[in-house]
Amino acid sequence: MRDTPYLVVDDHVLESNLAAMAAHARALGVALRPHAKTHKTIELARRQLAHEAVGLTVATVGEAEVFADAGIDDLFIAYPVWAEGPRAERLRRLASRVRVRVGVDSVEGVRMLAQAVQAGHDGAPSLAVAVEVDSGHHRSGVAAAEAATIARAALDSGLSVDGVFTFPGHSYGADAADPAAGDEAAALGAARDALRGASIPCPVVSGGSTPSARAADGAVLTELRPGVYPFGDAQQWELGTMTQDAIALTARATVVSRRDGVAVLDAGSKVLGADRAPYASGFGRLLDHPEARITALSEHHATVAFPPGARIPARGETLRVVPNHVCNAVNLVDELIVERNGVEVGAWAVAARGRNS
Amino acid sequence: MRDTPYLVVDDHVLESNLAAMAAHARALGVALRPHAKTHKTIELARRQLAHEAVGLTVATVGEAEVFADAGIDDLFIAYPVWAEGPRAERLRRLASRVRVRVGVDSVEGVRMLAQAVQAGHDGAPSLAVAVEVDSGHHRSGVAAAEAATIARAALDSGLSVDGVFTFPGHSYGADAADPAAGDEAAALGAARDALRGASIPCPVVSGGSTPSARAADGAVLTELRPGVYPFGDAQQWELGTMTQDAIALTARATVVSRRDGVAVLDAGSKVLGADRAPYASGFGRLLDHPEARITALSEHHATVAFPPGARIPARGETLRVVPNHVCNAVNLVDELIVERNGVEVGAWAVAARGRNS
Repeated sequence: MRDTPYLVVDDHVLESNLAAMAAHARALGVALRPHAKTHKTIELARRQLAHEAVGLTVATVGEAEVFADAGIDDLFIAYPVWAEGPRAERLRRLASRVRVRVGVDSVEGVRMLAQAVQAGHDGAPSLAVAVEVDSGHHRSGVAAAEAATIARAALDSGLSVDGVFTFPGHSYGADAADPAAGDEAAALGAARDALRGASIPCPVVSGGSTPSARAADGAVLTELRPGVYPFGDAQQWELGTMTQDAIALTARATVVSRRDGVAVLDAGSKVLGADRAPYASGFGRLLDHPEARITALSEHHATVAFPPGARIPARGETLRVVPNHVCNAVNLVDELIVERNGVEVGAWAVAARGRNS
Repeated sequence: MRDTPYLVVDDHVLESNLAAMAAHARALGVALRPHAKTHKTIELARRQLAHEAVGLTVATVGEAEVFADAGIDDLFIAYPVWAEGPRAERLRRLASRVRVRVGVDSVEGVRMLAQAVQAGHDGAPSLAVAVEVDSGHHRSGVAAAEAATIARAALDSGLSVDGVFTFPGHSYGADAADPAAGDEAAALGAARDALRGASIPCPVVSGGSTPSARAADGAVLTELRPGVYPFGDAQQWELGTMTQDAIALTARATVVSRRDGVAVLDAGSKVLGADRAPYASGFGRLLDHPEARITALSEHHATVAFPPGARIPARGETLRVVPNHVCNAVNLVDELIVERNGVEVGAWAVAARGRNS
């Protein structure tokens, strides 16, 4: 018996999710490069590679270092890394031992990267870049037409160019996934054509998010980077991207207080995360009580409202809570407990937890 | 030079906040028992004790263990701990070496606690409880009239009773702090009277939150438990509880992307937390650009909108970001960097990070 709250992975569900996404990428004819920010564990990274992943996507140099230390040798930092200070030297060392691709969305960023790895000098490690395109999420990334300028600057600086990428983050919304996948293909296709028009080869055309993956355009994309799909979460559930029975990660929580129609659990924002998207029904969901709603969340309390007439769980009962956004939940704990058929079979260290820089 | 993002404490501002709350409690004539969930560091706990704190408040047995290991010997776990499984034995060990008070809001919870510490048996460690009263936040806690029943059950089980407490969490809202402080005093006063009416002494009448502290009723309360006040955060700033110049903790972040009117920073929800209360203007604030708004937050990106005509910071510039909810931000990092007059003077380990159980 463990003290709640803690995060549990159902290994059978996980395995099924890994196989399904591998089959989907295979059917589309695209390479699968899962985003490891979701799980930050060596064990799951290896499972993804066993399920046909060509390498990993990460968000930070720190995450890349953790996976490189574990022997994973093909990493895409899908982020406009600003390679200054200690980070420049860390990136140089990383690129000297594994294959690294880095996101860029500016000529200035390209120049900092080239300087960091001393691109063009004898013995300098090779570093590839991919140009980030804004396909409608309006975060980082450039318009497709500008992609060739940045790619040209990279080549001129002695970096190699893998191609273009985007994150269609506007896929997170009601009925938004399929249109976002269309935007993704349009923006990536235009950026690829811009590079080719400038006589720059563009072997990699990389897109992906878990919601948009099902509608990804295999005629344009060469690579898919979904993150959340191994675990699922309440966001995917409520968006309709993943079904309730595909949710592989939950927080085990105990009822510590109750009153009419309400149970209060010991899982709060310090284990679930505080994410609440505009479309979310609450601060997470109960896997075995889909009719219940988490109406309030403090650091160590989830207030769960049950519908009229429902049995309210007793104090001391344990429940399974689905975090709204699993990436932030995982980053709050030191280990994930792994269960098979309800029996604990192991624990995975969240090796890249907190590696924000 | 450090790689961003990281959390920085301004030691002068911190010291001023500690002194101000100590003076406020002294003026009210109440004991100060700060909530250490906010900072989770040994160093700051000691500073609070040096600033007249009588002991600490914590949220979990795990947090209590960390502070007890550091020699802090008077701890209030202000939470309805369900003392079953390993937690029961952990609580017994804890109570055998430091003074521990635990929150209760049910007769069942009282019985579990008594069983855990084997209350009433020879050589059993002494454990005190305080009955939690709901003063309007509607989370855990009972109505004032029920407090005596629970206190009586505690005495009958061999536990000692310190008194009553509440968390007026409904102080978090526009113009809500002063009314919440009034509710707090009313509920605590009624609960205290209920205990006295049942011939149960009630030496401790404990309330507090950072927003309601200024209006706390010293004629009713004997103890105040604010948490956020050492650091402040964007919630306190926007609620008007703390001024901009009282904010002692910020995330140092770098501009990694920009476009018309917008800068994108490398501080996202994995270092700031994803909290966004209904009254918040965005996902945090920029300390040196109060006119800017964080309009979107991903795990590693903050999208900052500046007003028309404002200078947009250049790529590579570092900015100071105020998290919305500092307690959740601190829990995301392993250390807090301490600066004095802009010069780094130390680092404090977030010793109780992730101690959720």
